[in-house]
Amino acid sequence: MSITWTETQKQRLSELDAGEDNIKGRFFDSLQERDRAFQVLERELAARNREALQVLRNTTRRPLLSLVESRLVERLTKEGFVQVVTPILLSRGMLGKMTITPDHPLFRQVFWVDGDKCLRPMLAPNLYHLLRDLLRLWGKPVRIFEVGPCFRKESEGMRHLNEFTMLNLVELDDLEGRQEERLRQLAAIAMEAAGIRDYRLERNNCHVYGDTVDIVAGDLELGSGSWGPHKLDEQWGITDPWVGIGIGLERLVVALRGHGNIRRAGRSLSYLDGARLNI
Amino acid sequence: MSITWTETQKQRLSELDAGEDNIKGRFFDSLQERDRAFQVLERELAARNREALQVLRNTTRRPLLSLVESRLVERLTKEGFVQVVTPILLSRGMLGKMTITPDHPLFRQVFWVDGDKCLRPMLAPNLYHLLRDLLRLWGKPVRIFEVGPCFRKESEGMRHLNEFTMLNLVELDDLEGRQEERLRQLAAIAMEAAGIRDYRLERNNCHVYGDTVDIVAGDLELGSGSWGPHKLDEQWGITDPWVGIGIGLERLVVALRGHGNIRRAGRSLSYLDGARLNI
Repeated sequence: MSITWTETQKQRLSELDAGEDNIKGRFFDSLQERDRAFQVLERELAARNREALQVLRNTTRRPLLSLVESRLVERLTKEGFVQVVTPILLSRGMLGKMTITPDHPLFRQVFWVDGDKCLRPMLAPNLYHLLRDLLRLWGKPVRIFEVGPCFRKESEGMRHLNEFTMLNLVELDDLEGRQEERLRQLAAIAMEAAGIRDYRLERNNCHVYGDTVDIVAGDLELGSGSWGPHKLDEQWGITDPWVGIGIGLERLVVALRGHGNIRRAGRSLSYLDGARLNI
Repeated sequence: MSITWTETQKQRLSELDAGEDNIKGRFFDSLQERDRAFQVLERELAARNREALQVLRNTTRRPLLSLVESRLVERLTKEGFVQVVTPILLSRGMLGKMTITPDHPLFRQVFWVDGDKCLRPMLAPNLYHLLRDLLRLWGKPVRIFEVGPCFRKESEGMRHLNEFTMLNLVELDDLEGRQEERLRQLAAIAMEAAGIRDYRLERNNCHVYGDTVDIVAGDLELGSGSWGPHKLDEQWGITDPWVGIGIGLERLVVALRGHGNIRRAGRSLSYLDGARLNI
């Protein structure tokens, strides 16, 4: 009972989302027994992937990633938030205003384009930039959000993607003393819209924002919220209290579907809506 | 009657979407008269921009660019098309398979990232890539579309953006002999969904696809369709007939709103939903 999958078999089972138990918990008495078990399991998993693609084709017609985005947009606009659409290419200066300079851990994860521009690693700098104009034009409260692609050079582990989809919402208002309370309300609204019930909020500390409240499901961080007044605000001419939350949409999909690998949920030519295509 | 706006005044009027008649068709007897007229016009236009932002804040809550995208997605899925979400970062090889090599006019418009990757200048290579897998898994018809960011180094004229939003749909089916007819049907469906009535279809010829049918409103090209069998198909292992249409979403917004400059419709920190922010 000490024989287990070959590396190639493991790889294939992982591609087909066989699940931890199937990948790490199966042992066999002989190579023949193992290879027969692999054949059976692979056929079953391929059928399941094919079935998921049939459901996509005949019924849902949209990947869960896109559906979750639509649900969040619909709910947030109902809550008074205005959608904004900002540039994906950022100037180096915009990163600098977030204190993401060469000595910052995030700096080496930035994709540079033509030397002076980069692919945004987060939505926050653009939202910060808009806040001041919109406060002048609208007065308080200013409630905005964006949802769209962000980019970081990652090791491409099970939980990170080079290209991912962020939702970022910000509310600027007379929130002094109740920022964390409002943050918790907004996190609950977003999770309800995404269809995620089983989550918790954890106090934490991050490089860019300092104190944060993270949204966690199982051991997966789905998003993170922070609030101001904040040391970064001065750079952007903001003096009013605010709360903001950033959520990774691929992670919401992983939490909803129980995928073993986030690549399944993201922009891909190998997977479509969580199903492997080379089956 | 020979005095006209200063360059600074013209620039500001253009920023505020004053319209061709106001920018080029106004002449004055004296500098005082001109500057008074400018003040009046600027105030009026700023008020109009501010009003548009109030409508966005209180009523629509989504930029027209995002609304048009949602309408197209909704309609196309109803017509049996499946939405796909593919990588924004392409390998150089994917461009090569589109014959976009260094001697191709489009090549010098490509944004390169880390030398070997680029920002997709179009959605077609990724859709081509998926077609073969999906044909094997689904059989005919294969109907897919993507809507998302594309990037080209443009002179940033009135009609081009470095970052823009493309919709690309492809249908692969037994269409031999009726490709152009089907293309015209699909163009009509897309225009109806986008709310554009006043358009025409023009036969044309382009670098990448050869013969095309362009969707034109006034003198603005909104999109372009082509069909196969096509000389590019072999690279992607495609032998069946297909039709495809690519549409620029910012151009749909320009056509719907009558904006004088496409920057107003696109990803921006200076404009929000067509309104100038420094007012």
